[in-house]
Amino acid sequence: MLKFVVFSFLIVSASLAKDTQYTFDTKYIDIPLDHFSFTSNRTFTLRYLVNDTYFAEDGAIFFYDGNEGDISMFAQNSGLLFDMAPSFKALIVFAEHRYYGESLPFGNLSYTAPEYLGYLSSMQAMADFVFLINDLQKNYANPEVLEKLPVIAFGGSYGGMLAAWQKMKYPNSILGAIASSAPIWQFKGQNPCDSFYKIITDDFQTIGGDKCATTIKNSWEIIRTLAKNDSGKAELAKFWNFCTAFETDNDIDALVDWVSEVYAALAETNYPYPTNFLAPLPGNPIKEFCSKIDAYEYDDDKGLLKSIGEALQIYTNYTGTTKCNSLQSTSDVLGEDGWNFQACTEMIMPLCSKDDDMFENIEWDFQKYSDNCYKQFGIRPVNDEVPILLYGGKDLSAAHNIIFTNGLMDPWSGYGVLTNYSSDVLAMIIKDGVHHSDLRGGK
Amino acid sequence: MLKFVVFSFLIVSASLAKDTQYTFDTKYIDIPLDHFSFTSNRTFTLRYLVNDTYFAEDGAIFFYDGNEGDISMFAQNSGLLFDMAPSFKALIVFAEHRYYGESLPFGNLSYTAPEYLGYLSSMQAMADFVFLINDLQKNYANPEVLEKLPVIAFGGSYGGMLAAWQKMKYPNSILGAIASSAPIWQFKGQNPCDSFYKIITDDFQTIGGDKCATTIKNSWEIIRTLAKNDSGKAELAKFWNFCTAFETDNDIDALVDWVSEVYAALAETNYPYPTNFLAPLPGNPIKEFCSKIDAYEYDDDKGLLKSIGEALQIYTNYTGTTKCNSLQSTSDVLGEDGWNFQACTEMIMPLCSKDDDMFENIEWDFQKYSDNCYKQFGIRPVNDEVPILLYGGKDLSAAHNIIFTNGLMDPWSGYGVLTNYSSDVLAMIIKDGVHHSDLRGGK
Repeated sequence: MLKFVVFSFLIVSASLAKDTQYTFDTKYIDIPLDHFSFTSNRTFTLRYLVNDTYFAEDGAIFFYDGNEGDISMFAQNSGLLFDMAPSFKALIVFAEHRYYGESLPFGNLSYTAPEYLGYLSSMQAMADFVFLINDLQKNYANPEVLEKLPVIAFGGSYGGMLAAWQKMKYPNSILGAIASSAPIWQFKGQNPCDSFYKIITDDFQTIGGDKCATTIKNSWEIIRTLAKNDSGKAELAKFWNFCTAFETDNDIDALVDWVSEVYAALAETNYPYPTNFLAPLPGNPIKEFCSKIDAYEYDDDKGLLKSIGEALQIYTNYTGTTKCNSLQSTSDVLGEDGWNFQACTEMIMPLCSKDDDMFENIEWDFQKYSDNCYKQFGIRPVNDEVPILLYGGKDLSAAHNIIFTNGLMDPWSGYGVLTNYSSDVLAMIIKDGVHHSDLRGGK
Repeated sequence: MLKFVVFSFLIVSASLAKDTQYTFDTKYIDIPLDHFSFTSNRTFTLRYLVNDTYFAEDGAIFFYDGNEGDISMFAQNSGLLFDMAPSFKALIVFAEHRYYGESLPFGNLSYTAPEYLGYLSSMQAMADFVFLINDLQKNYANPEVLEKLPVIAFGGSYGGMLAAWQKMKYPNSILGAIASSAPIWQFKGQNPCDSFYKIITDDFQTIGGDKCATTIKNSWEIIRTLAKNDSGKAELAKFWNFCTAFETDNDIDALVDWVSEVYAALAETNYPYPTNFLAPLPGNPIKEFCSKIDAYEYDDDKGLLKSIGEALQIYTNYTGTTKCNSLQSTSDVLGEDGWNFQACTEMIMPLCSKDDDMFENIEWDFQKYSDNCYKQFGIRPVNDEVPILLYGGKDLSAAHNIIFTNGLMDPWSGYGVLTNYSSDVLAMIIKDGVHHSDLRGGK
């Protein structure tokens, strides 16, 4: 079947937090709304968080390129900066990405129409960071000690893409970049669109065993068959502990998306230790999930669905306090609408799944994708080549001093830079790592 | 005194043409109005000129990055592309810069208000070129012969800046760039603001002799003194053959600007052969100008002004058909309003003159500059660092395969790249060359 695939990284980022509480001063800076056109002098207020515990004037700036969510979420889940800061006497700065968290250029109107939302773009966000870094240099660099403080940009996932691109487009703004789990090669024709789902399938097979992946693969047809009538829809909701029954075929499509995203999230966040954010999770959640599948005995199709329903509680109800599940987004710190808009304008990243993975088939159809964008936002992507035109495709000749890190079990790693590109554009592989494992730090 | 200095390159480009007529097919392409924000799907029509005389599928594309004027003017004055095209089997393309010539995104409204004019920017124009090149690849590259045609960008003056920056920001769009007379280092703090006027002064001294430069230097005080009363203003208009008398002190300021720009234009276009565009000019126009000064005998201040008036005819009336002069712009192919807008937003290039050159003193005062921008366009520059933030200042680490060419007698060369930056970012000097001498070609 065909689905509208705009797979948010946020599902991923949602499960990153550990319990550590880092402290910051919250600051704000006025920045031009539009760096590239000049219809007005309008500015907006960007939020950023600063920790100067380790900073000295002969030190550095560690600058986190915010991504698609509230910056405080990322600031609590990127311990690597704190681990490294003492050695580099680094000022730690987490810059919020425009249109997420508190950095809403038009306040409550920001998401109401393209005339307001249109200034949400990676190109604008990167220029925001360049402006902010220029300001930080004025406030923190002491020319008698260092003319300019060396700045290292950090970013994970989409933020990693921004960090890498920032070093290419604005080489003067930063000395180098650590781009963690950045799928900068997930655009038209750059990699197979099914890598994402294939890697998840491999993860489930490797960690959870064949039965687990096979159970999931077999579930789709059972779901579709059962859901053909109302009583089946009701049963399905009951098996998987949903608060309300499913009513339409669209609901079933949404359910298939929802559970596919749960599998993806389990793979992306298969950290070896418990994590806690939207969904509290045990360490090695895929293993926990598949153990439940393995342990559940059944002898018919409905039993198979029930076994999945049982296992899903690892993700939906690890603490035992969730009464029932919902297809709605579970938190307002996620910027899903924002990311979906970005995916409809610049970040056109084909995803698909085929017969040889455990997911229901998903076809990549740009025209339908475009139609859905228009329906949702009143805007279409210009074409599916925009990101390649803007960011240069596989040509990294403008890049220097970038380290791309990828965990090979992370489904996004299929679109990352996995081998050294040049003497100063390096790839680091974390064999058992998942989505920006390294950014979380060792503490 | 303080003046509002937005010195248009166009004064320069105005005198470039030779009589050769190159022929082109005129083509058009629809391009997104805004590449970096997404408030609408609005597009506009960009004009470009194509000559495929020398093109073969195993050849190349020579792509001229249009600058601030009607593209047909540049297409007739850049013979270098035609000189080189046969050897490279190159398709020759001259792309018009948005908001100049016919490429007006909002038709007659384009220049009426910031909401229309605001999309005029170098960043947008460069992305236009990237889009157009992508389209050309589809139309002209034959994948069975070459997957992609190698593209070399050419540009002169501001267009040379675009060509160089395009290679840095969009390395995948072009293989290399020839950036002729491109003052990419004429932004805040990068070079002395008085280099421009100093080089002109040197040109006049070297070519025309000390008397010529001294006469000009002495003229300013005489002009200001004479113009204190109405009869003096009238005399001045008569000495320099102006159609109407000057009435206000502002007129005299404008006259000082006008004649300063004539001196600059003589230096910029001091080609060894006659040229003909807005102002037909002899070869070596500075020499011709100064010969007139030398030959004119006088014994008082008014005589000095008359001698300049006589010499000015080299520029204003070389053919003997100009009845009288005017302070107004003399041609509508010049995009002065457009350039002034760009100079008020992105291209903030400090210019000044001091005691040791032949010009009246001009102070660089960013606040007054900004005030004048607001008065003229209803928009202020964000700050004077914008171009450095956008284009990386003197850091060319993202650059590869760029040749910067400069004529050392060109006043803009004071802000160019005059020495090799790296093994593939090279500087070529034309000792006796003026403003993009090389682009004109040898024919």
